[in-house]
Amino acid sequence: MRFRSVLDEIKTYEAGKPIELVVRDYGINPSDVVKLASNENPFGCSAKVLSKIATLTPHIHRYPDDSYYALKTALANRYSVENSNIIIGSGSDQIFEFISHAILEQGDTVLQNKITFAMYDIYTRQAGAKTIRTDSDLHDLAQFEANLIHNPKIIYLTTPSNPLGDALDRDVVFQFLKRVSPETLVVIDAAYMEYAAAKDPKKLIDPKDLIAEFPNAIYTGTFSKAYGLGGLRVGYGIGEPKIIEALHKMRAPFNITSLSMAAAIEALGDQEFVQKSIAHNFREMKRYEIFADASELVFVGSYTNFIALFFPHNQSATKTAKALLERGVIVRDLASYGLNALRVTVGLASENDRFFELMQEVRK
Amino acid sequence: MRFRSVLDEIKTYEAGKPIELVVRDYGINPSDVVKLASNENPFGCSAKVLSKIATLTPHIHRYPDDSYYALKTALANRYSVENSNIIIGSGSDQIFEFISHAILEQGDTVLQNKITFAMYDIYTRQAGAKTIRTDSDLHDLAQFEANLIHNPKIIYLTTPSNPLGDALDRDVVFQFLKRVSPETLVVIDAAYMEYAAAKDPKKLIDPKDLIAEFPNAIYTGTFSKAYGLGGLRVGYGIGEPKIIEALHKMRAPFNITSLSMAAAIEALGDQEFVQKSIAHNFREMKRYEIFADASELVFVGSYTNFIALFFPHNQSATKTAKALLERGVIVRDLASYGLNALRVTVGLASENDRFFELMQEVRK
Repeated sequence: MRFRSVLDEIKTYEAGKPIELVVRDYGINPSDVVKLASNENPFGCSAKVLSKIATLTPHIHRYPDDSYYALKTALANRYSVENSNIIIGSGSDQIFEFISHAILEQGDTVLQNKITFAMYDIYTRQAGAKTIRTDSDLHDLAQFEANLIHNPKIIYLTTPSNPLGDALDRDVVFQFLKRVSPETLVVIDAAYMEYAAAKDPKKLIDPKDLIAEFPNAIYTGTFSKAYGLGGLRVGYGIGEPKIIEALHKMRAPFNITSLSMAAAIEALGDQEFVQKSIAHNFREMKRYEIFADASELVFVGSYTNFIALFFPHNQSATKTAKALLERGVIVRDLASYGLNALRVTVGLASENDRFFELMQEVRK
Repeated sequence: MRFRSVLDEIKTYEAGKPIELVVRDYGINPSDVVKLASNENPFGCSAKVLSKIATLTPHIHRYPDDSYYALKTALANRYSVENSNIIIGSGSDQIFEFISHAILEQGDTVLQNKITFAMYDIYTRQAGAKTIRTDSDLHDLAQFEANLIHNPKIIYLTTPSNPLGDALDRDVVFQFLKRVSPETLVVIDAAYMEYAAAKDPKKLIDPKDLIAEFPNAIYTGTFSKAYGLGGLRVGYGIGEPKIIEALHKMRAPFNITSLSMAAAIEALGDQEFVQKSIAHNFREMKRYEIFADASELVFVGSYTNFIALFFPHNQSATKTAKALLERGVIVRDLASYGLNALRVTVGLASENDRFFELMQEVRK
């Protein structure tokens, strides 16, 4: 049997190590494991979500409402847009997948930052297209502009960025968008926008303003980070109805679960929980910055719930990550991005304590 | 902005009307609505699943284990295959999507039955390929064989079939497979196999035997029907590791939720619930057959949890479906398949009573 030749170019994505597997591998007590690897909300999710799920569990034999009407309405209210501006995905990830498969033909090009979310390139390859990268680790729109000459079909702007945590000013993004061809779809991946907007309002990109001014842009968001629903897989895209309709043609029916939809609606309704989580996040982030300064680690100022810590040349982030893992602390080694750095999710105060303490002990 | 031209050929899938929307449209009391449209298990799911979900809900801020190790192991044990033979999908639906995108190039052909699951053709179109159909409503392998001349890249055999409910004998399927080129992938869509195997062991296709004898075949199953987890979106494919590896390249990370994985494992462990549901199903199915005979409706002997009822020429299934809907009973009109027929899911005894009673009243 012959598979498409584009598959030869695809490596499967390596996800963060789940707690259960660490426990299994090193025989560590589950309650001693500290997971700071996947940018999850350490407070969990809103208590309202938990009650809602309990009420709905007896109905899980029923298929979800495939129109996802109630969730679209809740998002439309939150962002002051129409339901027809919204598509629901199994994580915002799936929106990128729809976009790739709806637009790209063999040989097309896609522009992204040098260091960014690994899945863009995988979806691009799935469609037989090619990724062009800027030269800079941090997002630099002058470099994006220089690469417009390659006539990309899609541009990914990740703001705030993952795995480094930097964020672009809204005004700078809008200036850049004016220089992009209306034939190019620009994806604003805003998975961590709730954090950035709270830290600095200049970073806030409002999807309503964005798509009103740039009908060739799409905004993507997720419930996996600030809303604390990583296990339930809910994301969304906001764009002009023409784009949203096209993406719906690549969507399979029932792409999120009934519990996921209900949970997302409840989570959206509890902004107090989100704001409390974010306030905690930046208080604890300060401790990471102080720790880094005191430990000769270079960091990027982060607008997210994680921080990238760069190691000096004579030390190895990879070896350190392994030593931490053996002691039950899971962080993300950025070696696969060509960086001698760790990405650490800001956890509960006690979890961060454990990280600081162990780093003194095992750093290599 | 330009989307791929293949999108022009795609209509979006029309899902069964969810209970909430019927309630909204006709102002019917939710407790009076009877949904017999989506082949869900009317008993719900195993009580063990409900307890398990309650235990795990506090952890939904954590991403799932992307290897889905525990679920693969449970399925591998059930089917006496290896974990490397298994891929998990968001419904078996998503397995078809992986298959289409991994194999099909523009201009390729896919062979399916005339009347069958609507999504095969949509995934085929997404990949720019073309569907060839047999001429017969029921699955007829002689017709499939006659169409091998078109050199299909993929063949879909749906056994038992949806929306008609007929099923093929295992021996007949295996005889047919011997005549298929090893370069063609044959998908055995066995979404309702638990029902067929219980009604007539000759229909049972064991995935282990299937892939041992035909390495170009893949078996797909689901937790949405007999296991009662339609809202949680879990399906699987079982095939040779080479095929499974290729399909994994088209899979996005975290494609089912953490609760879905845990629920599927529990559901698989409670075969008593499944067998009880199936026994009830065929007892009530007998009542549908008697009703059809007494009401001049033609039916196809069904190996599933639904029955297709064909109306006489002077009556309209579509008008009848609408009249039922206005009274809160939801069934599937098969007009979009070119049939003057309804597909009715076998419900609880009281739900079936309501259908029989209303049919006398509103049939048009």
